[in-house]
Amino acid sequence: MRRTAFFISDGTGITAEALGHSLLTQFENIRFDQITLPYIDTPEKARNALIQINKTAAYDDGRPIIFDTIVNNEVRAIIAEADAFMVDIFGTFLAPLEDELAARSSYTVGKTHAISEERRYKQRIEAVNFAMDNDDGAKIKHYDEADIILIGVSRCGKTPTCLYMAMQFGIRAANYPLTEEDMDDCMRLKMPTALKNYRHKLFGLSIEAEQLCAIRQERRPNSPYASYELCEHETKEALALFQRERIAYIDTTRLSVEEISTRILAQAGLERHLK
Amino acid sequence: MRRTAFFISDGTGITAEALGHSLLTQFENIRFDQITLPYIDTPEKARNALIQINKTAAYDDGRPIIFDTIVNNEVRAIIAEADAFMVDIFGTFLAPLEDELAARSSYTVGKTHAISEERRYKQRIEAVNFAMDNDDGAKIKHYDEADIILIGVSRCGKTPTCLYMAMQFGIRAANYPLTEEDMDDCMRLKMPTALKNYRHKLFGLSIEAEQLCAIRQERRPNSPYASYELCEHETKEALALFQRERIAYIDTTRLSVEEISTRILAQAGLERHLK
Repeated sequence: MRRTAFFISDGTGITAEALGHSLLTQFENIRFDQITLPYIDTPEKARNALIQINKTAAYDDGRPIIFDTIVNNEVRAIIAEADAFMVDIFGTFLAPLEDELAARSSYTVGKTHAISEERRYKQRIEAVNFAMDNDDGAKIKHYDEADIILIGVSRCGKTPTCLYMAMQFGIRAANYPLTEEDMDDCMRLKMPTALKNYRHKLFGLSIEAEQLCAIRQERRPNSPYASYELCEHETKEALALFQRERIAYIDTTRLSVEEISTRILAQAGLERHLK
Repeated sequence: MRRTAFFISDGTGITAEALGHSLLTQFENIRFDQITLPYIDTPEKARNALIQINKTAAYDDGRPIIFDTIVNNEVRAIIAEADAFMVDIFGTFLAPLEDELAARSSYTVGKTHAISEERRYKQRIEAVNFAMDNDDGAKIKHYDEADIILIGVSRCGKTPTCLYMAMQFGIRAANYPLTEEDMDDCMRLKMPTALKNYRHKLFGLSIEAEQLCAIRQERRPNSPYASYELCEHETKEALALFQRERIAYIDTTRLSVEEISTRILAQAGLERHLK
């Protein structure tokens, strides 16, 4: 089975994609070609989209599915003429929400310019800059300003997680790698000196040796760095450190960056600064 | 007016937040306290959430609004008992989608482990690593592998845009700063030598001098770098370069990172590698 899914919006299309994706993953046996049509914000663009949708319908094993977050009623009405099954977010929920809130929707697209929104947006961008500046233990002098400091062995997922927490939730996340430099003469990992004053901000990322090894092999094939022995030793030592020092930690092995980030925030009691 | 909005999910809650946010911004005159309850994946957690929601109801100017993407029917039924107005995504759309697709939903949470999903996930993480490695003109030897190379003056938004395109869409984006080093003796900006072989991948970011100046002032107050004169000269020269060399560009002044990224992808004809 093969169907086409359209994600259509008068804005970026990101919400329509997120929603459509989470609904479509519920149907495992159908293959969906996914097409995003963003910035459909005039009747003319809508009519062009309509033609594209109806063309697709002819080649598939069924009519296309449309997930739309179109705010403008006139534009939405044109898309609704398509020979398609429409999961119509705003069309479905805005009217009942207006009743519930006893208020009229403004029907305006891409409203990101309220003061509070602007402040939050700035917070997100500053957090991204913070994550960049404080990646990989490069600097430690800004740790006072960090909301959280992720620690873990090289390639356990620290950097993407910091960037995601910053971009999505405006969290100032630094990260510090646990390396041989922090091991004693018996190759035991000890608490890095640089982190001693920031225990309350530390959060550990653990990972299974097999997966770490696979990731490092892609990065530097057949290097000692990517050897199973070193990966096993480092992951074991990191875990022992987290447990000995009672540092909260999460196993990243089978989790996505989104899952790691949101679980850390929940566990650490950090508030999401939403868009 | 003050109301509370809950974003509830048995997964990360990110989709519920995105959807709820885009609906709530339509009601400008109501202030919403926003609370995300992620990983509500057992009846017990749902009952605890229920208590929290009903408590909130007592303090607001109206019952809470719930935006939920709970897949599990049993869990969702418990939340539905709340004294709240429920915008129930899966409850509303899954049954009609099952009819349309003549297939049963799997009702499983966080399905990110299909092979194609795993491949796309890996692509996103590799793109993030690529953006980190190829930030700010640090290296140019990997430009062959880039999907796109953003160019613009310092602090016009290149880095956050590259990271967002990577994280959200799996796009390999490098960026190269236009600085005084690329100006001739008459302070005219010329095409940087490093970029000459990659014209087809270049995309310019322009920005208004006032905004650039404000951003740089926060970064390095009262420095020559942040002076209006330099900002005006650099922005003018960058724009002239884009136009003279016929490099596609976008004005980032009043756009969010999400908007800049999605508009660039659309203009450059780059496909989003969706989750």
